[in-house]
Amino acid sequence: MVAPFSIKGEASMYVIGIDGGGTKTIGAIVDESGHVYAKSEVGPSNPNSVDTSLVKSELEKICYSLREQQPEVFAQVTNVFAGMSGGDHQENQQLLKSILEGCFPKHVKVNIDNDAITALYSGTLGKPGVVQISGTGSITFGVNEHGERQRVGGWGYLFSDYGSGYAIGRDGVSEAFKAYDGITEETVLIRLLEMHYQVTSLPDIIPFIYQSKNPRTELASISKIVSEAADLGDQVAAKIYQKNGEDLGQSIVCLSKKLFPHTCKVPVVLTGGVFKRHDLLMDTMQEVLVKSDIRGEFIIPLVEPIGGAVIAALKEEKAEIHSNFVDNFNQ
Amino acid sequence: MVAPFSIKGEASMYVIGIDGGGTKTIGAIVDESGHVYAKSEVGPSNPNSVDTSLVKSELEKICYSLREQQPEVFAQVTNVFAGMSGGDHQENQQLLKSILEGCFPKHVKVNIDNDAITALYSGTLGKPGVVQISGTGSITFGVNEHGERQRVGGWGYLFSDYGSGYAIGRDGVSEAFKAYDGITEETVLIRLLEMHYQVTSLPDIIPFIYQSKNPRTELASISKIVSEAADLGDQVAAKIYQKNGEDLGQSIVCLSKKLFPHTCKVPVVLTGGVFKRHDLLMDTMQEVLVKSDIRGEFIIPLVEPIGGAVIAALKEEKAEIHSNFVDNFNQ
Repeated sequence: MVAPFSIKGEASMYVIGIDGGGTKTIGAIVDESGHVYAKSEVGPSNPNSVDTSLVKSELEKICYSLREQQPEVFAQVTNVFAGMSGGDHQENQQLLKSILEGCFPKHVKVNIDNDAITALYSGTLGKPGVVQISGTGSITFGVNEHGERQRVGGWGYLFSDYGSGYAIGRDGVSEAFKAYDGITEETVLIRLLEMHYQVTSLPDIIPFIYQSKNPRTELASISKIVSEAADLGDQVAAKIYQKNGEDLGQSIVCLSKKLFPHTCKVPVVLTGGVFKRHDLLMDTMQEVLVKSDIRGEFIIPLVEPIGGAVIAALKEEKAEIHSNFVDNFNQ
Repeated sequence: MVAPFSIKGEASMYVIGIDGGGTKTIGAIVDESGHVYAKSEVGPSNPNSVDTSLVKSELEKICYSLREQQPEVFAQVTNVFAGMSGGDHQENQQLLKSILEGCFPKHVKVNIDNDAITALYSGTLGKPGVVQISGTGSITFGVNEHGERQRVGGWGYLFSDYGSGYAIGRDGVSEAFKAYDGITEETVLIRLLEMHYQVTSLPDIIPFIYQSKNPRTELASISKIVSEAADLGDQVAAKIYQKNGEDLGQSIVCLSKKLFPHTCKVPVVLTGGVFKRHDLLMDTMQEVLVKSDIRGEFIIPLVEPIGGAVIAALKEEKAEIHSNFVDNFNQ
């Protein structure tokens, strides 16, 4: 992925994008054509989940590594854009900014933003739109052409789990137990859950979930079993995806109405682990949008979130994103 | 509540009932007329939530206290029935039985059962029927005239929370955020939650819940706010109670069909903190039962669960429950 410096040469601008999260942080030096000169991955940098001292050491580590890989290009960097989970709190933002500014000469501009904006740009390549993030949790976020931002959901898995991995996994287990009890129709989910946990009776899976280190992520991981059941033609699993697709559609409609005029075509970027199975959700989402008269255009991102961070940095520099950016970046 | 021994005298049978849970354990010596001779309350005795050594010391403490209060009656006790949370696991049952047997002479019969059976008997006074327990969590349990038992739900708050305090509280917060985001109609829940947590904006309640010692019980306690909103005529809160009433009705229908012939009138005991507001749930539950052709008769228990344990002990001794049992027991 990292090409030697010498084979490029037409670049006039070098920026650094950083994609920081609760488990890992990725950084890259890239030019406006999408050529990657250096890339590095370190540990977590979300100030909401790890100590300030660790956030500082990881961010310093990534800057050091990028400089080591390409000292000459590093010296020409003019802009750093970090899309960070936890980056929407003012306090965190100031902390992260002061750490990163300490890693660069004074003339380098450093911007911190939340990771939803870089997720959006990884699909729209810097254009306004809506992004639906559905990982363990979910949030709907958007920016319009005036730079106005809005969000829907994202209040944590317990209250606003529309279309999240947690919601799909939890619904899967819940429906399996309803069928086991005889409240609802049969579902292959029972057998798939028993197989997954290698037990002979459904109730035996309970300690594996409640006593797991993190029942929240444990349930989110079960969303894979629900999609497997849907593939097998299980109607209960199909209904779970339908319900979650409706919830997602409603969130997207609500957000689109807040930001975009009725006549506007709205790019809707779908990102996060749940959309590995976008095939199970998109038809229902589209139906909800059509019913509400929203002209949405679904986009599966062409680059990783780190690419969105790079695009945000180039936007800050008023650079045009080259037409071959995506191809070059993904090389 | 404890009358001096001398003013009774017609009693021919003395039993001990014990109601043991995760926070407290209550025991009483009672005769078949419902006269209470001694009563005592100690700490937790659920082997699933506290150490074996603590379970042992609390149960020994309660037996010691009952003997101290009425040594002569204690000496005439023939049966001990303990309805214990966690008492449906065989291992726990054996542990609890061996502890209690150590507290009494050999001829005293000791029975351990789960607390659902004593909850049932606190309403049916020993007759077959269904009990719907809705506290922080929920479970539907029943026994028919042949002694056959069935359950529905009770798989923990994450998967089978039908009509539990957790479900009602969580739905309340979830709907408040949906309205805050503009997905759904307005609700007074927003203002009530802000007032409850003394914050000026709904998102400020989030740390109070996620960072509370036990988010599960914190959310269950919010069910009171949902009932308050329903009292104020809030349609969103009313719908939450309606949905949970439907879920409860379906569980009761499912259980009734497992245990009772179609033509039979089924006593349905409603117990647990949620049913302090049975007025908000019962109409919907009744509708679901009627639609499924189940002839249910709702019963709000006339005595505390400890009364159910006493009745179970008297049943074991084949004693008739006197017609004035409830009046005497509640004196």
